[in-house]
Amino acid sequence: MFEKLKEEVCEKNLMLAKTGLITLTFGNLSVYDREAGVVAIKPSGVGYDELTPDKIPVMSIDGSVVEGNYRPSSDTETHLEIYRNFRSACSVIHTHSEFATAFAQARREIPAYGTTHGDYFYGAIPCTREMTGAETESDYEKNTGKVIVETFAEKDESAVPGVLVCSHGPFVWGKNSNEALTHAVVLEQVAKMAFYTEFLGNRETMSRHLLDRHFFRKHGKNAYYGQKNT
Amino acid sequence: MFEKLKEEVCEKNLMLAKTGLITLTFGNLSVYDREAGVVAIKPSGVGYDELTPDKIPVMSIDGSVVEGNYRPSSDTETHLEIYRNFRSACSVIHTHSEFATAFAQARREIPAYGTTHGDYFYGAIPCTREMTGAETESDYEKNTGKVIVETFAEKDESAVPGVLVCSHGPFVWGKNSNEALTHAVVLEQVAKMAFYTEFLGNRETMSRHLLDRHFFRKHGKNAYYGQKNT
Amino acid sequence: MFEKLKEEVCEKNLMLAKTGLITLTFGNLSVYDREAGVVAIKPSGVGYDELTPDKIPVMSIDGSVVEGNYRPSSDTETHLEIYRNFRSACSVIHTHSEFATAFAQARREIPAYGTTHGDYFYGAIPCTREMTGAETESDYEKNTGKVIVETFAEKDESAVPGVLVCSHGPFVWGKNSNEALTHAVVLEQVAKMAFYTEFLGNRETMSRHLLDRHFFRKHGKNAYYGQKNT
Amino acid sequence: MFEKLKEEVCEKNLMLAKTGLITLTFGNLSVYDREAGVVAIKPSGVGYDELTPDKIPVMSIDGSVVEGNYRPSSDTETHLEIYRNFRSACSVIHTHSEFATAFAQARREIPAYGTTHGDYFYGAIPCTREMTGAETESDYEKNTGKVIVETFAEKDESAVPGVLVCSHGPFVWGKNSNEALTHAVVLEQVAKMAFYTEFLGNRETMSRHLLDRHFFRKHGKNAYYGQKNT
Repeated sequence: MFEKLKEEVCEKNLMLAKTGLITLTFGNLSVYDREAGVVAIKPSGVGYDELTPDKIPVMSIDGSVVEGNYRPSSDTETHLEIYRNFRSACSVIHTHSEFATAFAQARREIPAYGTTHGDYFYGAIPCTREMTGAETESDYEKNTGKVIVETFAEKDESAVPGVLVCSHGPFVWGKNSNEALTHAVVLEQVAKMAFYTEFLGNRETMSRHLLDRHFFRKHGKNAYYGQKNT
Repeated sequence: MFEKLKEEVCEKNLMLAKTGLITLTFGNLSVYDREAGVVAIKPSGVGYDELTPDKIPVMSIDGSVVEGNYRPSSDTETHLEIYRNFRSACSVIHTHSEFATAFAQARREIPAYGTTHGDYFYGAIPCTREMTGAETESDYEKNTGKVIVETFAEKDESAVPGVLVCSHGPFVWGKNSNEALTHAVVLEQVAKMAFYTEFLGNRETMSRHLLDRHFFRKHGKNAYYGQKNT
Repeated sequence: MFEKLKEEVCEKNLMLAKTGLITLTFGNLSVYDREAGVVAIKPSGVGYDELTPDKIPVMSIDGSVVEGNYRPSSDTETHLEIYRNFRSACSVIHTHSEFATAFAQARREIPAYGTTHGDYFYGAIPCTREMTGAETESDYEKNTGKVIVETFAEKDESAVPGVLVCSHGPFVWGKNSNEALTHAVVLEQVAKMAFYTEFLGNRETMSRHLLDRHFFRKHGKNAYYGQKNT
Repeated sequence: MFEKLKEEVCEKNLMLAKTGLITLTFGNLSVYDREAGVVAIKPSGVGYDELTPDKIPVMSIDGSVVEGNYRPSSDTETHLEIYRNFRSACSVIHTHSEFATAFAQARREIPAYGTTHGDYFYGAIPCTREMTGAETESDYEKNTGKVIVETFAEKDESAVPGVLVCSHGPFVWGKNSNEALTHAVVLEQVAKMAFYTEFLGNRETMSRHLLDRHFFRKHGKNAYYGQKNT
């Protein structure tokens, strides 16, 4: 069962590995099939060169394995917590991409300095608070998800589809795995350019009207970017 | 009609994608055939791996489509405004290349720190002023072109064939698509080296006589760089 | 004799060259077969494109050559000193990888700023003290090993499997050559991200409980990362 | 005539292009055959993909063309001035490699911060003074060579086989084209690592005894790096 889902998750994890965002095995991608009620994710610690669809574990949204003999990624509980709370998310990606991780390690959000950012993220990409000792000592991965959800208490996670986990690294999501991959790539790119921008002496973000123009040029009912049928 | 023009625009957009200046689909190249009075440009949001000559839209200089079924790049009106005002430009390229974009996000011109810069750009590469709310809310792309033209009110756009749009990124041009590609590559390279130069503690630009020597070694009637017939 | 060992050392030196950590011939990997009591290492100044198993010198732990016609790496005595003192090390790698070397040249340890670091190194990666004139003038390479060992007088070298030699560059080790390769790659990656993190304004290391969680998620009897049999 | 020389110069210019030090055509390599009394160099403005041995111009040491129909590199007079004054140089390379050029644009020497530097350059790699208006206006390329020679008035050019020309970029040399290529690659690498080192807060150079140890481990009659016959 779930052959198509396992093939997609395998293929997109391999695409993720080719983006250059991943060192060794520091990354994972999952897909949530909301209709079937199952999540498929990269198995833990398996190299990208050995990854095949039959090694992809499938589980229910509460984490009980439905199919597969491999242990799911150790970050699985974080993915599940995101799916349980963010209705727009049907694919989640975690990486340790360099500049995004540097912002996470610096405990800082990524400010919106330009239109590359505004085309995909409607404002700053937030950084979670530091996790407490208690949150870290038990149910660590699930609590990582909880602190992500908490960070979006006052934000729309579909307009800012990514977050930095403090001292750790980025998680992004999308309405499908292609969109999640795009968000993973763009988040690293805007982190890198924000880093360079600050070095050049600026900490002033882009104007509100320019952010509005670029985000809504690509999103929502008045979007006019791309072809009509895609 | 316009087969040769569409082939050129397709081929040169693919070459642009191979320069490393482009992430995802953040870039476009157009060519203006001044004799035929038509402009061809990359279609909006089409991936480089799917790009073929028959997908290249052709339009008149006022923007009305003459040939093709695909929507032109959302930046088309900016390209057209440049062609209408800069007589030396027959090809325009827009990218979000990293260091040039960082200068744009930092709202700063790129100073001429050395001969790599002076070989192609006769002085600092300017940054436009920030666009107003009114300019952003309607006719945004055309107004982007207008603010570029305004920036060159007192400058010769053929001697400084590039600009940074504030909070956005670079546009370059040339007398043909090969020259525009060279300018796109060089602009990113000089932005990167200017960044490193400032880090190393210097903000003093190159001497005027060295800039003159290098620019006029390659440009104008006394140029002596390259082979006689090329 | 020792064909399998020489093949492994040849193959893993070639893998090391493909990691991107090596410029020209600035790097070497050795393996210590503790049962057979012999060490095999890259020959000195031989290019990676000419490296074959029959060129790999094999020596006893006191440095006397047992097999092979090529001079061992000039850094051999440093490797041997590490093997004689660090019981957990059966493979050693030396590189001049860029960011790790920059920390070494800056005479600074690499602080643990995030979980990428904590997954492999249980705390800061130390930098040795500067070597004295006497230590440099005779038995230089052996003394380099001694100053590395001295740096771990109060540390567990199996929990922090790497070091920066002051004004020189990194050495890492592992219980086999695969683990040593992983440590070489991760050390460069965490050095790079630490550099970026400090630029972004943070010098506060990760919390102790987060470091514990990540290190012990992968190491020791309660580890739960990866598959059961690997 | 000079077929072997032209083949070497063609091949080594192509190897230079593959090092990653060259953007577009910003680089050139020449070889001086001191016995035959002729210099061969890359032709001006010819792309690396079109370069063949028959296009390589050969000239006498005073610059008069002996063979070939292509104009020599516009930097030829600088190469010749180096050969006329530096007896140890039989091959010269000029690039605009990024970090070395940044030091040149910052008008700064590259300090010797570590053993990667000391293995090839016996102390700081100097930067020339700024050239005067008169030196720039006539015989510019020859005067560039003169200012390089002037910079070594009190230095041994065989122990520090490279220089930064102020506001321009690096020139390196060697006793043959392989050695010159090595010096071009190492100079960029040490420039990059010096940049990172300074960022991390250190401006203290390596100790004198460590510099001596590393330079003389590879150079002079007591060298012990590499194999006996190479």
